[in-house]
Amino acid sequence: MPDRRLRNRIHEIIFEADTPTGKFFDIALLILIGVSVIAVMLESSEEWNQRYHTLFFYTEWFLTIVFTIEYALRLYVTVRPLKYALSFYGIVDIMAILPSYLSLLIPNSQYFLIIRVLRLMRIFRIFKLGQYLNEGDQLRRSLADSRNKIAVFLFAVTMLVTIIGAVMYLIEGGSNDGFSSIPRAVYWAIVTITTVGYGDITPQTQIGQFLSAVVMIIGYAIIAVPTGIVTSEMMRGERRRKPLRNNTQVCRFCAKEGHDDDAVYCKYCGGRLNPEQ
Amino acid sequence: MPDRRLRNRIHEIIFEADTPTGKFFDIALLILIGVSVIAVMLESSEEWNQRYHTLFFYTEWFLTIVFTIEYALRLYVTVRPLKYALSFYGIVDIMAILPSYLSLLIPNSQYFLIIRVLRLMRIFRIFKLGQYLNEGDQLRRSLADSRNKIAVFLFAVTMLVTIIGAVMYLIEGGSNDGFSSIPRAVYWAIVTITTVGYGDITPQTQIGQFLSAVVMIIGYAIIAVPTGIVTSEMMRGERRRKPLRNNTQVCRFCAKEGHDDDAVYCKYCGGRLNPEQ
Amino acid sequence: MPDRRLRNRIHEIIFEADTPTGKFFDIALLILIGVSVIAVMLESSEEWNQRYHTLFFYTEWFLTIVFTIEYALRLYVTVRPLKYALSFYGIVDIMAILPSYLSLLIPNSQYFLIIRVLRLMRIFRIFKLGQYLNEGDQLRRSLADSRNKIAVFLFAVTMLVTIIGAVMYLIEGGSNDGFSSIPRAVYWAIVTITTVGYGDITPQTQIGQFLSAVVMIIGYAIIAVPTGIVTSEMMRGERRRKPLRNNTQVCRFCAKEGHDDDAVYCKYCGGRLNPEQ
Amino acid sequence: MPDRRLRNRIHEIIFEADTPTGKFFDIALLILIGVSVIAVMLESSEEWNQRYHTLFFYTEWFLTIVFTIEYALRLYVTVRPLKYALSFYGIVDIMAILPSYLSLLIPNSQYFLIIRVLRLMRIFRIFKLGQYLNEGDQLRRSLADSRNKIAVFLFAVTMLVTIIGAVMYLIEGGSNDGFSSIPRAVYWAIVTITTVGYGDITPQTQIGQFLSAVVMIIGYAIIAVPTGIVTSEMMRGERRRKPLRNNTQVCRFCAKEGHDDDAVYCKYCGGRLNPEQ
Repeated sequence: MPDRRLRNRIHEIIFEADTPTGKFFDIALLILIGVSVIAVMLESSEEWNQRYHTLFFYTEWFLTIVFTIEYALRLYVTVRPLKYALSFYGIVDIMAILPSYLSLLIPNSQYFLIIRVLRLMRIFRIFKLGQYLNEGDQLRRSLADSRNKIAVFLFAVTMLVTIIGAVMYLIEGGSNDGFSSIPRAVYWAIVTITTVGYGDITPQTQIGQFLSAVVMIIGYAIIAVPTGIVTSEMMRGERRRKPLRNNTQVCRFCAKEGHDDDAVYCKYCGGRLNPEQ
Repeated sequence: MPDRRLRNRIHEIIFEADTPTGKFFDIALLILIGVSVIAVMLESSEEWNQRYHTLFFYTEWFLTIVFTIEYALRLYVTVRPLKYALSFYGIVDIMAILPSYLSLLIPNSQYFLIIRVLRLMRIFRIFKLGQYLNEGDQLRRSLADSRNKIAVFLFAVTMLVTIIGAVMYLIEGGSNDGFSSIPRAVYWAIVTITTVGYGDITPQTQIGQFLSAVVMIIGYAIIAVPTGIVTSEMMRGERRRKPLRNNTQVCRFCAKEGHDDDAVYCKYCGGRLNPEQ
Repeated sequence: MPDRRLRNRIHEIIFEADTPTGKFFDIALLILIGVSVIAVMLESSEEWNQRYHTLFFYTEWFLTIVFTIEYALRLYVTVRPLKYALSFYGIVDIMAILPSYLSLLIPNSQYFLIIRVLRLMRIFRIFKLGQYLNEGDQLRRSLADSRNKIAVFLFAVTMLVTIIGAVMYLIEGGSNDGFSSIPRAVYWAIVTITTVGYGDITPQTQIGQFLSAVVMIIGYAIIAVPTGIVTSEMMRGERRRKPLRNNTQVCRFCAKEGHDDDAVYCKYCGGRLNPEQ
Repeated sequence: MPDRRLRNRIHEIIFEADTPTGKFFDIALLILIGVSVIAVMLESSEEWNQRYHTLFFYTEWFLTIVFTIEYALRLYVTVRPLKYALSFYGIVDIMAILPSYLSLLIPNSQYFLIIRVLRLMRIFRIFKLGQYLNEGDQLRRSLADSRNKIAVFLFAVTMLVTIIGAVMYLIEGGSNDGFSSIPRAVYWAIVTITTVGYGDITPQTQIGQFLSAVVMIIGYAIIAVPTGIVTSEMMRGERRRKPLRNNTQVCRFCAKEGHDDDAVYCKYCGGRLNPEQ
């Protein structure tokens, strides 16, 4: 079965980064993705677009074709292509090429190509990936564990800014264009309580400024809350941390990652992992 | 006593969310509250109000009548109505309908209907409430425990901004309209030290900018204090955390919540809890 | 010795807050201080000053005379007046009356009366003082313990903003009025890295905006440092916390506070504490 | 070998701060560095430069010559000059004099003299240095330990702001000059999510303001993450902290610092430390 061996070989190159060829492929891919993202960003600038319009046009289509071939190959070498197509990376990969084709029908839709930036997440697979994945995993778990507390907190903040906004609308609404409606006043309250403070809407009356000062002092005290939540959750996480070593193998059957170095079969679907690593 | 059974049945539906009908009632109520809050917010916008004035008018009065009937029912089915009327939710419920009637006498008072947003707190009663109430309770307790420290801190900050404001008034007052009085300068100091930084008042003189920079650096160091307080209080709270399971039962006699699943009598007033749950 | 007993009685009233008369005196004093601070603040506002100039004038002088008499009494009843005069509260008390007399010689110096706000610190002596003093003490100790780390941190930040400022001056200086000198660019860097962000000076060139974005991301990461320092110091403080009960006695000889309830002699100078409490 | 003894004596004076002469030299040097940095900063200001141009010119050249002599002496007294020249301080020292000479060839390059501010780091060598170096070391180690987590976090933030920026460009781009290209919109997203909030670019449409509010609320929650990372890393650091006593000796052979008080030989290269301390 030369075809099978070819597919396994390609799978190893484009899905994994443990072999020199696989690593080279991933680095080249990352560079192309980076170039692509920068091209989309610069194309949106009138100034750059006028000067290099043709260049951007050809770069975009060249890269779209490259990524389309790569996507087709990924489908081809995976034993159950649908599993890959519906996995997180699979969805990102298709969304990274679709906008180019869509832009033939709908103008400006090529800007959705910016979604390609998500493909850069593959970067962790190349450089000391296990460690970084582990750190990222810890971060995600800490945030997930504090999800309920943060939900309660955000709900309380939402109610608070709604009421503050309505009160400020009543105080400032008449004399100040910035507070011309409650939604705008709520927007102001969020800008203030998060300490962003654009200054596009500011209180003008003395009582409005006094109330704003009170809101800021309150915001000063409650900005501590999410930090407290995440920090205490992280310190709890610290205690149960255990080292995790991963390699870059991806199951050919179900497209799941995170297999141990000595794993022979996929721990999720039982499929045999790529033997030629 | 069919009347008694009817009252108990209604009590179960409108006060609790353990039965399908009770849950349906609460979800419908939440949607109506949400619609009502959004209507009040949009009504305040000149643009929306001109286009949909009649719609807002009828929505507001329709919902006010619905909420009035609901409030009357709540009073009717509670054994001691005064207890409910004076409880937190009871006060919020009456404040959520009064402004509509007041707006017949005093123009613009309908904006106080925004207080209806507080009724959304009932949301926690429906979805996995025990857990969220527990989280909210932990947050509240952490903040309550650090109340003294935060009071001392806010007092120190208040003194600090007053003095900084006065000094900046003396430095910038003459040449800069923004610092035309000490209260305005104190407002500026609060905007600066909380890192909100609107930019509506900024120092213009070199010495004023130098002093501002010092104030910001100080603010940088002391913004750490409330976070430190809340975080250390939360981590202490972590240690004494114990799981708490609540249901949505509300005593018909004293309108208190938080009864255990196996409770037969209200733990606050001894009244028998609704038996048909 | 009736004189001695009178002095002790007065000492008890004006220095301590354990007796009803002492408490009443302190509360009355706090109200007068509050009135005085608000009067100074409002006087600085053109609008208020024009309307109530005479009222402010008489209030200020009336309160200055009251505070002068009070200061004289404090000197009179303390056994070693110099000790009191040179203590923290003694210096604040004299600075709270001097500016009024100075304003006869130097115009505008009455604004230094704002220093009276520091006298409000006596508020902790009245309401559950022991507890608050304790909390304040913990806060102060945590900050004192982290003094070295914060000094190192602030030094590093100072060097960082100087270099960032100089680079931004070279990039933006030519085309952007806001970056017309290195000190102004350093001021901008401080405004940015502390996340205050007035927006009075903003980068205009593309490279300047790119560098600013990098500075903000860096600032995002290092704003965590002082918080981390203070939090970890506070949690260490937690562990060695022990309850501390104070009363409001002040030694007549050395004007030091913080004596235990059962103390008969001053623990700092050995003088006998006021026996008639 | 009088030459050798002279070199050792000079080494002790200019490299160390344990003897009175060494301390005096370091303090004098720090003052000159401070004067130099302030002169460079003020020179950049049009206003100051016009008034004191000659003074700045002579100060700069005088100090450059002094620092050049000092640098030559440092090379002379070190046994292996190249090691010093390539050490961190050695590179800073040469970069602190080069721009002056470069300014003869390239105009404006004298502003790079601001790099002299890094020489101020020697300040820690004089006042209770061991302690501060220790604190700085702890800070650095905490940051180094959380490097991976912060890298993952910053990567995630970068992807987030890119996508937010692109979406805001699509929403606001047409009607709002501030969002005229994706890079500018990404700059806005960074300004917003770090809570800097200049206000030079603000959303104008209702949907743009709504999305901004969501971004701020998200930013509010994730600003907690770096703080949590650093705090938990610091508290882990606390536990393994052990006192560290350093003196100011610098090896004459390899220019490394951090030797114990009783060290006779350099622990890095085995060279004999300066015996006459």
